[in-house]
Amino acid sequence: MVRIALGLEYDGRRFCGWQSQSSACGVQDALEQALSEIAGERIRVHAAGRTDTGVHALAQVIHFDTSAIRPDGAWVRGTNALLPDSVSVLWACPVGEGFHARFSAQERRYRYILLNHPVRPGLFSGKIGWFHVPLDIELMRQGADFLVGEHDFSAFRASGCQAKSPVKHLRELAITRQGDTLIFDLAANGFLHHMVRNIVGCLVYVGKKRYPPEWIGELLASADRTRAAPTFAPDGLYFSGVTYDPKWDLPRPSRVLHFEF
Amino acid sequence: MVRIALGLEYDGRRFCGWQSQSSACGVQDALEQALSEIAGERIRVHAAGRTDTGVHALAQVIHFDTSAIRPDGAWVRGTNALLPDSVSVLWACPVGEGFHARFSAQERRYRYILLNHPVRPGLFSGKIGWFHVPLDIELMRQGADFLVGEHDFSAFRASGCQAKSPVKHLRELAITRQGDTLIFDLAANGFLHHMVRNIVGCLVYVGKKRYPPEWIGELLASADRTRAAPTFAPDGLYFSGVTYDPKWDLPRPSRVLHFEF
Repeated sequence: MVRIALGLEYDGRRFCGWQSQSSACGVQDALEQALSEIAGERIRVHAAGRTDTGVHALAQVIHFDTSAIRPDGAWVRGTNALLPDSVSVLWACPVGEGFHARFSAQERRYRYILLNHPVRPGLFSGKIGWFHVPLDIELMRQGADFLVGEHDFSAFRASGCQAKSPVKHLRELAITRQGDTLIFDLAANGFLHHMVRNIVGCLVYVGKKRYPPEWIGELLASADRTRAAPTFAPDGLYFSGVTYDPKWDLPRPSRVLHFEF
Repeated sequence: MVRIALGLEYDGRRFCGWQSQSSACGVQDALEQALSEIAGERIRVHAAGRTDTGVHALAQVIHFDTSAIRPDGAWVRGTNALLPDSVSVLWACPVGEGFHARFSAQERRYRYILLNHPVRPGLFSGKIGWFHVPLDIELMRQGADFLVGEHDFSAFRASGCQAKSPVKHLRELAITRQGDTLIFDLAANGFLHHMVRNIVGCLVYVGKKRYPPEWIGELLASADRTRAAPTFAPDGLYFSGVTYDPKWDLPRPSRVLHFEF
């Protein structure tokens, strides 16, 4: 048996989330079906992060075990020839059997892209979040500063979240404006269910001046989800990176996409 | 009667092109249906440019005549509430009756976004063209220089093209690289059917060194479509702007989108 790691990207709107479903609408279903065909045996994969319906991935990492011996290129090009258009394998390489896509991950990164403009998205609907009233990015940054560090993030946790602990270490929460888009970059050892979308929703409340930045600190301390803003739309959310110990020698995220209009 | 101009954006993959079809799958069908509902009368629109199936628009401009009196905001927000997610009206304003979205246009702009990477797009499939072999951008720029100016573009014209004349004035053809994407910006008084996609296809032939840059000049002079490269995919093509005489006082393209990963 050999253990193979794969990097992949996908358009979350074409699937009902990462996880395998009885109706086979998960990204995992499409990937397992394609890999099984290449391997000539049933393949079961494990992912670094389970994305929800409508959430996209730029750099999902998965692993699987197989007895099939194939060149790395076959796991990339062969699988891509069998996958739907909206998902593609970016790289593949053998890894030591101690590697686990989920449990070996040291840091995960998400990016949220928010269109801050009076008119809703059309061209990039489903690929970009939207808020119509001008947002004050300076106030949002002040609010964001309360969240950086190791905290109990219960106030930003979905009720159905299965994580063992609500304590996570948020290492980065940067907000930048590029034209009419706001870009949120988050890095943490792990994320609770809906954590990014709940954080974005609360920061939007601060940006539109419904609450002052200090409200974020109070909300965090309260650990009370019912006081927070509604979960923001999945449309602009991208699972953008996973960090592993360099000893695993995985490829770097392998391409740089750029759209600017 | 009043004449109204609208700016709009759309995801071309969700429609069978701009033009109205008996099956009502054109962008024009969706727009006329929504506008007719807002106006309370049958509305017929005229567009600056007819985009093909799969071709996107960032800044399409249309006009229509109506006896309905509505605030500008109703033509924007009201219409957007009735349109599918993948198309949105960006602005609306009354214009003089001498204005015609198609015939008053002085310049049209297109942008082509091409992923130049060994692995096909997944996340942005349908929104970005793709070529797998590394392209030499310097050679492509040398080839592009042959096309700038007023020429007979018959070699880059689709067989079914209905334009009266194959002579167009290409004012700009800029190629830039941003990460793993190549961006082609074209501006002309008008474009023949498939002209941008045929130009991109031929420049890719130069970039991959199948032919030298001078081939583009020979091809242009030959006016022979059968010697050119196949029409490139619509996926990465965006109708990105229309210029009118300032006397019409139309709004500037009204938002700036930015995606970078």
